[in-house]
Amino acid sequence: MARIQRIDVHDVRFPTSRLRHGSDAMNPDPDYSAAYVVLHADDPAVPAGHGFTFTIGRGNEVCCAAIRALAEHVVGLDVAATVADLGEFTRRLTHDPQLRWLGPEKGVIQLATAAVSNAMWDLAAKLAGVPLWQLLSGMSPEQLADLVDWRYLTDALTAEEAVDLLGAAQPGRAGRADQLREHGYPAYTTSPGWWGYDDATVIRLARAAVRDGFRQVKLKVGADLEADVRRLKATREAVGPEVRIAVDANQRWGVPEAIAWMAALAPYHPCWIEEPTSPDDVLGHAAVRRAVAPIRVATGEHAANPVVFKQLLQAGAADVVQIDACRVAGVADNVAILLLAAKFGVPVCPHAGGVGLCELVQHLAMFDYVAVSGSIADRVIEYVDHLHEHFVDPVVVRGGRYLAPTAPGYSAQLRPESLAGHLFPDGPVWAGGGG
Amino acid sequence: MARIQRIDVHDVRFPTSRLRHGSDAMNPDPDYSAAYVVLHADDPAVPAGHGFTFTIGRGNEVCCAAIRALAEHVVGLDVAATVADLGEFTRRLTHDPQLRWLGPEKGVIQLATAAVSNAMWDLAAKLAGVPLWQLLSGMSPEQLADLVDWRYLTDALTAEEAVDLLGAAQPGRAGRADQLREHGYPAYTTSPGWWGYDDATVIRLARAAVRDGFRQVKLKVGADLEADVRRLKATREAVGPEVRIAVDANQRWGVPEAIAWMAALAPYHPCWIEEPTSPDDVLGHAAVRRAVAPIRVATGEHAANPVVFKQLLQAGAADVVQIDACRVAGVADNVAILLLAAKFGVPVCPHAGGVGLCELVQHLAMFDYVAVSGSIADRVIEYVDHLHEHFVDPVVVRGGRYLAPTAPGYSAQLRPESLAGHLFPDGPVWAGGGG
Repeated sequence: MARIQRIDVHDVRFPTSRLRHGSDAMNPDPDYSAAYVVLHADDPAVPAGHGFTFTIGRGNEVCCAAIRALAEHVVGLDVAATVADLGEFTRRLTHDPQLRWLGPEKGVIQLATAAVSNAMWDLAAKLAGVPLWQLLSGMSPEQLADLVDWRYLTDALTAEEAVDLLGAAQPGRAGRADQLREHGYPAYTTSPGWWGYDDATVIRLARAAVRDGFRQVKLKVGADLEADVRRLKATREAVGPEVRIAVDANQRWGVPEAIAWMAALAPYHPCWIEEPTSPDDVLGHAAVRRAVAPIRVATGEHAANPVVFKQLLQAGAADVVQIDACRVAGVADNVAILLLAAKFGVPVCPHAGGVGLCELVQHLAMFDYVAVSGSIADRVIEYVDHLHEHFVDPVVVRGGRYLAPTAPGYSAQLRPESLAGHLFPDGPVWAGGGG
Repeated sequence: MARIQRIDVHDVRFPTSRLRHGSDAMNPDPDYSAAYVVLHADDPAVPAGHGFTFTIGRGNEVCCAAIRALAEHVVGLDVAATVADLGEFTRRLTHDPQLRWLGPEKGVIQLATAAVSNAMWDLAAKLAGVPLWQLLSGMSPEQLADLVDWRYLTDALTAEEAVDLLGAAQPGRAGRADQLREHGYPAYTTSPGWWGYDDATVIRLARAAVRDGFRQVKLKVGADLEADVRRLKATREAVGPEVRIAVDANQRWGVPEAIAWMAALAPYHPCWIEEPTSPDDVLGHAAVRRAVAPIRVATGEHAANPVVFKQLLQAGAADVVQIDACRVAGVADNVAILLLAAKFGVPVCPHAGGVGLCELVQHLAMFDYVAVSGSIADRVIEYVDHLHEHFVDPVVVRGGRYLAPTAPGYSAQLRPESLAGHLFPDGPVWAGGGG
């Protein structure tokens, strides 16, 4: 009977701000970072579980401290019993009454819960010998519904309805999994559009993305209206009328400002406006959506938990639900969000980029296609071409599509030399005043 | 020109779980704790600023880590310039782009911001030689509006409207301040109703509270319907029909469960149901409110920031707005919330208890009366009779009313021996395996 013996916590940071990769109107100088967890069992036959949450630099150590606070709920657990009931495991983390006070289910303690939960799911998938999307896609409707914490969701969706919804998608699972293995899942790219790039770079990279097969690119907006209009116009001219251009304000605006700004960008036909205002502002997003239609409203990467997603759907506040693998309480919360989105008929287009977010979230989107929504229409996974070389099982994107992962696990594992090299503050990348 | 030279951070915990003081349906065993901050200037003529955020035990060290992450925005600041523009100081803390990722404006990083901000306001009031409520009540409408971060609020309230609203209340300020000094501010007490107390204790303490002059008591509910009905009925019989009895579910229910539970409690006329469901569920609170009227819905102690309060008011989700001194970004955010509540005509009844929350929040309620809402109707400050002996300037409650504080500052300062005695994990209360 193997037990979890040890949880290692590492503060890993990549000095991305040196080249302004990842910059936007709210985050001018991110250093992509991971509060990184490795779960070790006392039986060498049990694979280590790797997981992390993502931050943009300062404060990554606060997430590490929160992970250490959760460790008492993990060390000593029976491995077989835990991977057999991962919903219960997640609720064990989120229901600690004293730690819950620090959220509840939001902010640092939720990010830490994501890291720990992601690591346990990686372990579970490795133990099962399959990639995570396949582990999830092989679970029964009842098993999937049991993953969810239903306490605050039943006014929008009950466990029984979820089982029905999942049951209806069950017959087509095998065929859709084959489709994924053959054709992959469509991606869009944010790599051309960082706020800190000059116009020529944006246009050159947008053209290259189209040549590489992407049918959607994304530009960061929100800091300077004149520059945004100029850049969107030039990009539209460069890529032509068929390629979709999303714009992303990263929470920069209030509601009236968002509406006015989007009126100025509308002539260049952006396909969606992402995070026009505070991620907590459900009613604000609904007001923006009513005003900017037919431009769609996308949000969710900073929504803290399924209760916020529930309301975004109830209020008709989002055309595109953007899940994140590291901000809510891991896979279980994301299963809840996928089910809610399916119930309301809203497509899910995951947030990715950062460090390792592409690696994780591809599994969730593919599971959604196989076993939940059953659809790939109007759905794309974000892609950013940074930092994949640090992962043992990096994403493969070809012709603008994510290929289905085949290695067992959640694709979360950093290469040992990348982990050691980027430890903060004492790893070689940081020691000696770099950064 | 004095500057902030040092920020000391202390992990202070009180072993309240040993007697189940403070227990409720979600928090059976809290150890009331403070992540405690002391700001020291390089000039001995400048008083130290004391502040804290409140937690219930485990994870208090995570808040301390987050406070240390904010220290770079504090150390070295010019004291005179900072206290002259405390809105800018708060925005400096909440707008750090990398630390903002950990929230934004929620959870641990927001709790830490509260602690640091509260300490700076304590310093400012001590420097001015007045209690905090009086410092705020002496500011002009324009100065008060400048405290607020308006980015996400203008669809509900603009700075100009706030100045008008504050201007309208200006003529009566002096008279209301005199009223406060003479008669204090009404309180209600939660001390009788902890979940872990037996029925006889609840009834005995409720009767004693009424004898002491309280016109409202509060009971914790939500874990056991039969016990809740029995206890509420007995308490109603003990205190008679005139004394208000609030009930508090501490987020225990989903929306349908909250509605059903309150139907069973309605015959005993609770005056409000507090936190019936997730603090993030604006639309859920609105649904509960529509269903349980005329019982009022109270919430806010766990609402993370003014954007959530804005929506509670826009959606008609709350009859009673419960501010907390330590969960939002300090005094500046609470000024924003008081202004929003005044605009929507909803009374504010602060959350208190814990350790030191009564000491802090009395200042905010008294400022609201003097300079914002101008009203004391339907307003009460929560009172709990624990841990006041540890403060240098403890609250004084007589005849069911808070007396107006007179000492300079924010009443946040722990007595040195209490601070030293309760340091975690090495103070004498904790060393040797206590707790």
